[in-house]
Amino acid sequence: MRIVVPAGGTGGARFVRGLLAALADSSGTGAPGEGWTVTVIGNTGDDLTMWGLRVCPDIDTVLYTLGGGIDDERGWGRVGETFTVKDELAEYDSLPTWFGLGDRDLATHLTRTALLADGATLSEATAVLAARWELPGRGVRLLPMSDQPVETHVRLVPPGEDAPRLVHFQEYWVRWRAEPAVEAVVSVGAEDAVPAPGVLEAITEADFILLPPSNPVVSIGSVLAVPGIRTAIEESLAPVVGVSPIVGGQVVRGMADKLLPAIGVDVSAAGVGLAYGPGLLDGWLMDTSDAADVDRVAAAGIACRAVPLMMTDVPATAEIARQALALGELVEQ
Amino acid sequence: MRIVVPAGGTGGARFVRGLLAALADSSGTGAPGEGWTVTVIGNTGDDLTMWGLRVCPDIDTVLYTLGGGIDDERGWGRVGETFTVKDELAEYDSLPTWFGLGDRDLATHLTRTALLADGATLSEATAVLAARWELPGRGVRLLPMSDQPVETHVRLVPPGEDAPRLVHFQEYWVRWRAEPAVEAVVSVGAEDAVPAPGVLEAITEADFILLPPSNPVVSIGSVLAVPGIRTAIEESLAPVVGVSPIVGGQVVRGMADKLLPAIGVDVSAAGVGLAYGPGLLDGWLMDTSDAADVDRVAAAGIACRAVPLMMTDVPATAEIARQALALGELVEQ
Repeated sequence: MRIVVPAGGTGGARFVRGLLAALADSSGTGAPGEGWTVTVIGNTGDDLTMWGLRVCPDIDTVLYTLGGGIDDERGWGRVGETFTVKDELAEYDSLPTWFGLGDRDLATHLTRTALLADGATLSEATAVLAARWELPGRGVRLLPMSDQPVETHVRLVPPGEDAPRLVHFQEYWVRWRAEPAVEAVVSVGAEDAVPAPGVLEAITEADFILLPPSNPVVSIGSVLAVPGIRTAIEESLAPVVGVSPIVGGQVVRGMADKLLPAIGVDVSAAGVGLAYGPGLLDGWLMDTSDAADVDRVAAAGIACRAVPLMMTDVPATAEIARQALALGELVEQ
Repeated sequence: MRIVVPAGGTGGARFVRGLLAALADSSGTGAPGEGWTVTVIGNTGDDLTMWGLRVCPDIDTVLYTLGGGIDDERGWGRVGETFTVKDELAEYDSLPTWFGLGDRDLATHLTRTALLADGATLSEATAVLAARWELPGRGVRLLPMSDQPVETHVRLVPPGEDAPRLVHFQEYWVRWRAEPAVEAVVSVGAEDAVPAPGVLEAITEADFILLPPSNPVVSIGSVLAVPGIRTAIEESLAPVVGVSPIVGGQVVRGMADKLLPAIGVDVSAAGVGLAYGPGLLDGWLMDTSDAADVDRVAAAGIACRAVPLMMTDVPATAEIARQALALGELVEQ
């Protein structure tokens, strides 16, 4: 069973962790990497160069979450993290310090940056990092969506300025805490990017494609913005099932509610499912609190079910993954 | 009073700290930077690029020692240092970890590397770092010997190899603990380097030039290898007084005894003074334990005195600096 999951940061990583638990629990699936494989197509739209280091926030969140190194309370960064380097940088007062790079996290960025400087592609560098977190042994292949830089920028009026301009998503998200109104979301570099090696093949050969409850605009949306990926998913013979990141009209985590209006999408489970649309989705899971909208989504030609969607812990998340796979099997028939 | 001190790492930095204490103690010298200035010409021959970061070990030792951030017990790096990033890098097992980069230290390298990447010269980057450590307010101007990379390499047979080759000095010093025999010392890039802005002017305008007890081969020797610097010191009207790094036939600190034979110099206070020679030196301070050799040095035309040279603490070091200045005044007359 070959499962493909385009994934952003916390939501995507937690979903995959639950999926792995579900696969491990099911009898007869065999060992990781034999009976089944999970290919994660990691969003690199959030990537940025900070302090001369190449930082891939979503890739790192997947690595740390699946490898057992994540700070589960924050949902990003390393557990037991310290910030000695960042504090010292503030003393020098020469580099920006709004981005929260921890000491342990820095080792990841230093390793990646050195590998890239040595001529490795982002795919190759990611494979080196994934080896340390034992992703292959867990049945997971983590691929960046593209080896070319594709950076998500948002158009807004920065605090203290008069006119709108494009700023890096991380600057909007972390530095300005998503407070300025977003007028547009742009994937800078997407038109010149191609999917990383293995991405299209994984989609074409997939038995299931699952869209986790990642941010539909800047996580899943960025992956789909790489030329060829959306078409490959649309044309795939595998069932494509998504999990709503909106529960009861609220974002469970993150700030997708600030971004959905910028692309003209309702902040609702049905709104996101219909925005993905029947061309992309075969099935759509919404939370039980959104059950009233199931028929509206189904009427558009997307098989829709309402099940509990709160990823409160790994067993609850594994159950969501099982529901997604079950809906996939249903629509396949 | 304008004093110029070409300096390496621990020995040079401690000498300058003592010199500053001596200047602060003397009546009538005025405030730092007004009545007197100390221009330190920092050795950059030890510099290396490690993990993609530009590291300047001797410059940093001067910054930390004069700025109060040094680990005085080790003689290098930051007091209260932690090694979280380095430990994490070891987990990735992808980059060399023989070089002991601490977390606090890393902020210095990140800041320098980012400034250089932004187009700053090493002089300009050093000035930014020096501002944080308040060197200007202490009356100290720290200049790198050159803005061009000049890296000290040594020819040796690396452990486990058959034939001699050039390796970076830090690799010999830190990784192999100065154990392989050194056949030659080479300043790679020196022929294409020019002194950094202000270096030659400071030497020409100096009232005193003091050679601290730094490594004569790879610290002072590297500074003198930059075309123009040795000649400027030789032609300077200011008295040039050196302080022996060898006491009682032993190196006080470091491993100069491993390197002096490679350049054909006796491991003795007189040997180093005579190797610098009367063309460079007007005066030479040796330790009282080496008093028997004073006449031999004096016979070569170098004013020589035997005084206690152990830099056990700041007051003892200040007294050495006073003796150096006094010998300078004597030879000037």
